[in-house]
Amino acid sequence: MILQLEPNLTEAQRKAILEQISAVKYKTTPVKTQYGDYLIGIGKGDFDIRRLGHLPGIKDIHVVSDTYMLVSRKWKVAPTVIDLGDGVTVGEGSLAIMSGPCSIETEAQIEGMVAHLKENHVRIMRGGVFKPRSSPYAFRGLGIEGLKLFHRICRQNGIKIITEVMQVSQVDEMLPYVDVFQVGARNTQNFNLLDALGKVDKPVLIKRGLSGTIDELLQSAEYVFSGGNERIMLCERGIRTYETASRNTLDLNAVPILKEKSHLPVVVDPSHGIGIRDFIEPMALAAVMAGADGVIYEAHATPEEAASDGAQTLNFPESAELIRKLRLAYQLRKGW
Amino acid sequence: MILQLEPNLTEAQRKAILEQISAVKYKTTPVKTQYGDYLIGIGKGDFDIRRLGHLPGIKDIHVVSDTYMLVSRKWKVAPTVIDLGDGVTVGEGSLAIMSGPCSIETEAQIEGMVAHLKENHVRIMRGGVFKPRSSPYAFRGLGIEGLKLFHRICRQNGIKIITEVMQVSQVDEMLPYVDVFQVGARNTQNFNLLDALGKVDKPVLIKRGLSGTIDELLQSAEYVFSGGNERIMLCERGIRTYETASRNTLDLNAVPILKEKSHLPVVVDPSHGIGIRDFIEPMALAAVMAGADGVIYEAHATPEEAASDGAQTLNFPESAELIRKLRLAYQLRKGW
Amino acid sequence: MILQLEPNLTEAQRKAILEQISAVKYKTTPVKTQYGDYLIGIGKGDFDIRRLGHLPGIKDIHVVSDTYMLVSRKWKVAPTVIDLGDGVTVGEGSLAIMSGPCSIETEAQIEGMVAHLKENHVRIMRGGVFKPRSSPYAFRGLGIEGLKLFHRICRQNGIKIITEVMQVSQVDEMLPYVDVFQVGARNTQNFNLLDALGKVDKPVLIKRGLSGTIDELLQSAEYVFSGGNERIMLCERGIRTYETASRNTLDLNAVPILKEKSHLPVVVDPSHGIGIRDFIEPMALAAVMAGADGVIYEAHATPEEAASDGAQTLNFPESAELIRKLRLAYQLRKGW
Amino acid sequence: MILQLEPNLTEAQRKAILEQISAVKYKTTPVKTQYGDYLIGIGKGDFDIRRLGHLPGIKDIHVVSDTYMLVSRKWKVAPTVIDLGDGVTVGEGSLAIMSGPCSIETEAQIEGMVAHLKENHVRIMRGGVFKPRSSPYAFRGLGIEGLKLFHRICRQNGIKIITEVMQVSQVDEMLPYVDVFQVGARNTQNFNLLDALGKVDKPVLIKRGLSGTIDELLQSAEYVFSGGNERIMLCERGIRTYETASRNTLDLNAVPILKEKSHLPVVVDPSHGIGIRDFIEPMALAAVMAGADGVIYEAHATPEEAASDGAQTLNFPESAELIRKLRLAYQLRKGW
Repeated sequence: MILQLEPNLTEAQRKAILEQISAVKYKTTPVKTQYGDYLIGIGKGDFDIRRLGHLPGIKDIHVVSDTYMLVSRKWKVAPTVIDLGDGVTVGEGSLAIMSGPCSIETEAQIEGMVAHLKENHVRIMRGGVFKPRSSPYAFRGLGIEGLKLFHRICRQNGIKIITEVMQVSQVDEMLPYVDVFQVGARNTQNFNLLDALGKVDKPVLIKRGLSGTIDELLQSAEYVFSGGNERIMLCERGIRTYETASRNTLDLNAVPILKEKSHLPVVVDPSHGIGIRDFIEPMALAAVMAGADGVIYEAHATPEEAASDGAQTLNFPESAELIRKLRLAYQLRKGW
Repeated sequence: MILQLEPNLTEAQRKAILEQISAVKYKTTPVKTQYGDYLIGIGKGDFDIRRLGHLPGIKDIHVVSDTYMLVSRKWKVAPTVIDLGDGVTVGEGSLAIMSGPCSIETEAQIEGMVAHLKENHVRIMRGGVFKPRSSPYAFRGLGIEGLKLFHRICRQNGIKIITEVMQVSQVDEMLPYVDVFQVGARNTQNFNLLDALGKVDKPVLIKRGLSGTIDELLQSAEYVFSGGNERIMLCERGIRTYETASRNTLDLNAVPILKEKSHLPVVVDPSHGIGIRDFIEPMALAAVMAGADGVIYEAHATPEEAASDGAQTLNFPESAELIRKLRLAYQLRKGW
Repeated sequence: MILQLEPNLTEAQRKAILEQISAVKYKTTPVKTQYGDYLIGIGKGDFDIRRLGHLPGIKDIHVVSDTYMLVSRKWKVAPTVIDLGDGVTVGEGSLAIMSGPCSIETEAQIEGMVAHLKENHVRIMRGGVFKPRSSPYAFRGLGIEGLKLFHRICRQNGIKIITEVMQVSQVDEMLPYVDVFQVGARNTQNFNLLDALGKVDKPVLIKRGLSGTIDELLQSAEYVFSGGNERIMLCERGIRTYETASRNTLDLNAVPILKEKSHLPVVVDPSHGIGIRDFIEPMALAAVMAGADGVIYEAHATPEEAASDGAQTLNFPESAELIRKLRLAYQLRKGW
Repeated sequence: MILQLEPNLTEAQRKAILEQISAVKYKTTPVKTQYGDYLIGIGKGDFDIRRLGHLPGIKDIHVVSDTYMLVSRKWKVAPTVIDLGDGVTVGEGSLAIMSGPCSIETEAQIEGMVAHLKENHVRIMRGGVFKPRSSPYAFRGLGIEGLKLFHRICRQNGIKIITEVMQVSQVDEMLPYVDVFQVGARNTQNFNLLDALGKVDKPVLIKRGLSGTIDELLQSAEYVFSGGNERIMLCERGIRTYETASRNTLDLNAVPILKEKSHLPVVVDPSHGIGIRDFIEPMALAAVMAGADGVIYEAHATPEEAASDGAQTLNFPESAELIRKLRLAYQLRKGW
């Protein structure tokens, strides 16, 4: 059960509401976000909402029985659009394109990429500075200094930054330099990290776990929302199956299913979703047709020389061609 | 190794070729199809094809090292287009739409469906008369009498028929009444059935196994081709994964991968691939963008009353809308 | 709903029973097996069994709501023990050991294997003569002539035969020469084959599908039982997962779950279940501890030279050692 | 490549070694653990170890080509035995039994459990105080205060503690109160946490990821070892598959495979591995037969009232019975 509270709720009103709820042995969790003040009520048995409906201080009540609530479309039907500032938004009404290298490497690399994005009117650049690697001996990214460099060049050029955060202790140091925090597939159920991202006022993109279910992704988003941050994007990036012909199995079924279950924007990552450079384009276009609000993919001036993920990274001509087609496909979908 | 033989090959020439091959301990399998005469050579170690190249009777030699050969694009680069007659084709250059009920039920049902297809200029109707059911107590289809009825009405209206064959003994009795034999997901590795379908001169559509790999699908197609039948379509219909929010996980990655590995047309079945009526449309459109040569989906005048699969079946207005959009999406893709 | 009928049921009694059932719109399927006469009733809504209980001709009524019924322990609590004759049984009370090569190859091979089995007091030999192969160019077994040879040598030595049947047309020709028909993992849902095996009076071992669920395995067994054959063994042989360090993932969880859900004996195949020769022994022993009624594994005088599956086949000393340990483990379990 | 260095290595010797290695463009990572001083060398191309073999300061050189090295049995053949003090060890030569509730709840609960363990001569108690929960609204454990209570009672009774650590910031505060840090299935690839656990001198048990491969588990262990901590146990706890009849699919294949690939002890968790109380016993016994060095399972005085995981938790009589059988099974295996 979600109770939306009035902004000017008094303490006496809050107390009266809590009393009514505890009378039926429901447990409550207060949630305060950038945009609202909520009470989540969880309990067994049905609840007669007429017990609450007349109380002052309550704006609206929604009975939502899923394992996730605040991210559900059952209480918030209108799609969430996330404003990154300077006219850049993610969500219904436009197609968000996010492109960039797997890893941030050098100043020249960032500048080249930024020039490519500007030329193609793309406003969001991806790039990792903290890299989760299965081997402890592999390159782990440039770290916070790389992020500062990344930030300086993007700010000069009006480009927004999305980059991965791997642990709680990085959140504060990264905060001034990111526009969207990305939670990687290995951290989808790093609940402490999700808690911490609930406390910041920057958008968060959560990737589906390596073998995460759609419901688990929504529950992870519920962590961030209930922690206080409503600005969340969901990202399908392929799941682990028995099939070895592709790096992962891109589950585009997840796109319409997530769009129906949740009001949050859905982004697709075809680079990790198929993992084969030549097929990034068809899968990105398929994602648009499946209903995605955005696409995030890897691009690099010289994929062969990229520090990581070169085999699934587009070069600039391929990237420009993809951007052109993505927009045509999105226009077709929008104008059916 | 594939040897394409001259149509007028003499026995003496054949003998000379076989001798050269057996000299290097390669095992040969002769393959004779509607369109050609081949020798498949399998052996260990490299083979110096100059030993054969000069021999009369050989049209071409291809070294193909995969577990499948004749269906590989490594020897036949041009895409295969399958002609069903009367101007109906499946493969490169057009988008094949196949639509119809899960099960053939009544004369009225067939007539209604045929009218719907004609109205929308669709030329291929699907419909099952032999139904594989996990429970022995479930409806198993109308059988051969249903197929005769199905055939009579379709013939009168210029509609081609695709329907599932479940076992070897059905092949002959069904032959006069089908335009495309469909091999279901549970029979993808029913090798005796594949052998039998290699002997008939009707096209075959092979669905990917419930948890079949892309390579296994191609090997199953190799059975049909090496049995003598080159007219094969491959069909992605979703695989079994841990995700339960959809009936299967539609693996659209398989589309560009199959198109690169094989010269055979690739068809996608979004009905089984997601299993949720409301999302058939986005997944069908995504399939087109991923590069599919055709789409096969379930439609019924009144899905709620269908004998099977109602929950993933479109009604006629939904079907008409899907057809319209499929063609727009295909035009966009074709004209990039 | 399962109705067990009296053996001397009159036609009038049958009619009266059917009338009562059809009065509540339940659909019935008559089942006649080696051991009994049943009526399966399926319908919506609850059924008041008092409507039937008083009717003459009914021995017992069981309400079983699963998708499988006759194989369920909900109506037959006592475990089924299958008698292969000559004192050889499979099921509760003993541990069945089935051993032999993947493929039957030569007379000498069979004789060597039979000698090994006799020396170790094993009474059931496995060996394939019809081999399902993913490639059409691979060795497909010796066929019916191989089976006759296999049969002659085993009969002379008191050894029972279990061997795979791949298609309906083989059932009759194989019937005189087999003691147990094996349905392979690719045919678990070959419903026509299951139907045909319901008509014969020889036991059937059904392997779980490549990615079959436990419920699907039970439903496949239901096909055979409802076809008329009660003598069925279930076989866990590993499922397909993302893990590639083993050939399949042996799902020993299936053993106690199947034993609780069904009265049928459960056999485990560690050879296909892990696919690595060195680890067949620990997995076979684990199967016994998990509660298996039998173990089926591959053995060969010289695994390196076996026509197929050599990498997962034990040689005779390894096999003898395994048999010794299997019996010790089973004794421990039996005597807890 | 692993170089074991002499304990009294001089700086000049180290420099000489590094120079030889960098001459062939290998990258080195120094590793210093409780027990030794190592250099890990990674590079392309073969390395002639004779370039190094004669240099003073080198104790031994091992060429190990896997993605994991220090945890590999290719370098350290003898199994690792971990000493928890007071005569409690985990590894070859004994069967470690770890038992206790999912969550630490109350003082009385801990005392009851401890009494049960002492009665059955079990020396290691499990119990969570930080609980990873998919829903943000679920009980998350008693936290550090619960751990202190847990520790006080166990210390008084000679019981060792294994408990889950969820994030880097908890490592230091938990350190004085734990005997084994447990890394949960959702944190197997939380690389920052693994790094931090490499720095402490307490053993670590790493659970296999929800859908982690065997190789990934070994790579995660490599993180801890290369961080400086050699005292690592690996834990199989079931993987995610399409099968829903059990909570997870316990992959006992992993036991012999891990034992062959690595020198680290392997523990099995049947509680999460099957998730059904009645079947914990057979799966735990199967784990012993498969070669496990230990078993960790959930027990509670009154599972029905447990704060979490009640459906897979044994009561004390069931637990006592399991312990008795585990020891008999282990004795049988040891004495084959």
